[in-house]
Amino acid sequence: MSDPSKYSLNSKLVAQATEEWLEKRGVTKREIAELVMVLQQAYFPDLTIEECEQNVNAVLSKREVQNAVLTGIQLDLLAEEGKLLPPLQEMIKHDEGLYGCDEVLALSIVNVYGSIGFTNFGYIDKLKPGVLMRLNDKSDREIHTFLDDIVGAVAASASSRIAHRKQAEREGSTNVPLD
Amino acid sequence: MSDPSKYSLNSKLVAQATEEWLEKRGVTKREIAELVMVLQQAYFPDLTIEECEQNVNAVLSKREVQNAVLTGIQLDLLAEEGKLLPPLQEMIKHDEGLYGCDEVLALSIVNVYGSIGFTNFGYIDKLKPGVLMRLNDKSDREIHTFLDDIVGAVAASASSRIAHRKQAEREGSTNVPLD
Amino acid sequence: MSDPSKYSLNSKLVAQATEEWLEKRGVTKREIAELVMVLQQAYFPDLTIEECEQNVNAVLSKREVQNAVLTGIQLDLLAEEGKLLPPLQEMIKHDEGLYGCDEVLALSIVNVYGSIGFTNFGYIDKLKPGVLMRLNDKSDREIHTFLDDIVGAVAASASSRIAHRKQAEREGSTNVPLD
Amino acid sequence: MSDPSKYSLNSKLVAQATEEWLEKRGVTKREIAELVMVLQQAYFPDLTIEECEQNVNAVLSKREVQNAVLTGIQLDLLAEEGKLLPPLQEMIKHDEGLYGCDEVLALSIVNVYGSIGFTNFGYIDKLKPGVLMRLNDKSDREIHTFLDDIVGAVAASASSRIAHRKQAEREGSTNVPLD
Repeated sequence: MSDPSKYSLNSKLVAQATEEWLEKRGVTKREIAELVMVLQQAYFPDLTIEECEQNVNAVLSKREVQNAVLTGIQLDLLAEEGKLLPPLQEMIKHDEGLYGCDEVLALSIVNVYGSIGFTNFGYIDKLKPGVLMRLNDKSDREIHTFLDDIVGAVAASASSRIAHRKQAEREGSTNVPLD
Repeated sequence: MSDPSKYSLNSKLVAQATEEWLEKRGVTKREIAELVMVLQQAYFPDLTIEECEQNVNAVLSKREVQNAVLTGIQLDLLAEEGKLLPPLQEMIKHDEGLYGCDEVLALSIVNVYGSIGFTNFGYIDKLKPGVLMRLNDKSDREIHTFLDDIVGAVAASASSRIAHRKQAEREGSTNVPLD
Repeated sequence: MSDPSKYSLNSKLVAQATEEWLEKRGVTKREIAELVMVLQQAYFPDLTIEECEQNVNAVLSKREVQNAVLTGIQLDLLAEEGKLLPPLQEMIKHDEGLYGCDEVLALSIVNVYGSIGFTNFGYIDKLKPGVLMRLNDKSDREIHTFLDDIVGAVAASASSRIAHRKQAEREGSTNVPLD
Repeated sequence: MSDPSKYSLNSKLVAQATEEWLEKRGVTKREIAELVMVLQQAYFPDLTIEECEQNVNAVLSKREVQNAVLTGIQLDLLAEEGKLLPPLQEMIKHDEGLYGCDEVLALSIVNVYGSIGFTNFGYIDKLKPGVLMRLNDKSDREIHTFLDDIVGAVAASASSRIAHRKQAEREGSTNVPLD
């Protein structure tokens, strides 16, 4: 049985697994950055896609975010393999509208960058631009019930991060209230 | 001095004040029902405006919702009167994008009907259809920094309530999992 | 491939699976009711264990709660079988303190009965009385990383429900603001 | 009339007001640090009060936290002056158990440091050690309905921050997943 004294969290492995699994599930950081662009370009006309991608990277470096990404992808994978308990299997496979644990995990990502991200998350989750459209396509055998919400949440969080940093720049401050 | 032994919550007064203040601030239940229609008509083509309004009433009968409505309107009112502490006064008066306590209170309303409402809340809060457009108009001297998010949250909650009830009807059940 | 037109949510199966899996994982409603008693007896000296159990049943009848219970138990089960992705497997198996998705799912349960339950949830989750102590025992091969938080959340929600209902009784009202 | 083109957020003023108002309301950072000590000493025996205070300072430097602190203190102040709308005035003055907007604002603080802080928040909010006991004393004419929850939330957030940093130290990492 497990020996708790031997267990020790390895943060690097968690971070690596997050990177790898996003890639294996077909989501690039550039695509998430493009969602950020959709959300923020109207407010910051000079915003570049590289800047968006840097902010996506910063969001993905947070432990809270990594935990949610891995947990969500795990449930999607198991649903693809048909290995979940019957009613859960059906609900996740079909992205049941009345099942909201995917939104719950996604919101835990948004929360880390403060409440101003709620609106962006809901907006992008409803409109499903770019990569979200692909993830939400039900015609192939892949299941992304959790991942599409999670990717939207990472984009919304990166948008919040940009909004806070741009304000700090405007004020000539090096002190960023939420990073 | 307050005498806690004499104090006793009067739920009827809280409910009445919620009704009255929504009206005084120029928001009718019919207008909130119209937001629900925007959110739900695509899913339930037979949905009537009367049904939407009934669901808005049900949402507004919850104590958690009433508390958030009154607290939000209170802060809007004080901002109109210029009576808030300086930095808060400025932030609420100008609906500062990096101030998110309005979204926080709104989300506490959405949560009561479960996580499926997050998306609808964000979507409507971004697009600002109908009454939300008017509340969000910055050209007059009224301040609705909190109320516009709260009205959007009530509409999103009523939409969640409808989604749960329609499922119960479809299954021929009288037992509604979230009311 | 899945035919979405054939899928239809069966709420009864979700409710039944919730009941069955709580039982299979060794948690009785009476034990959850006892946690409610711990939380509420000081406020309502006449509260009976039967009343607590009725309120636990009401909480467990909500879809949002059932979804969280099933999703949490599912992840615990897969961790016991060693079937999760490596870093997630380790974190859930050892109830890693910096992994918070279990608390996230639990909070989605508490939210349904309003914000007054946060405190009770945190308190009971820290003290681990009764059944929570057993679930949290790391000496056997069972893993209840999600379930112990979820059971605490159901008890906190039932406590909130009781607090709202007792107020309605006190005011002689049949209209219960949060049920 | 407000001229939105002239308005510009001044982050420094918001930060200063937060510091000043905590002090005016009789709460020192050292007292909040002592709450952190209560929560974390069992896990990190070498933790010093200075380290706790540094973490409290870091939490208080976040904009999301400052917004919640100022909004909460504002509502407490207005309740002391008897200037709130009647039912809200009564509920906040008497720290009504069924009014949860204070917990809602507090949770928005906790969320910034991730979900692992929920438990600590609830625990400390129930037990009310140290400064929380004084803030919660109803015998004088001061009202701290919001502030006591907010101070507990700042302490819980600082505890989460410490837990994340200690793990990074243990792993010899300079990269802190949540700061």
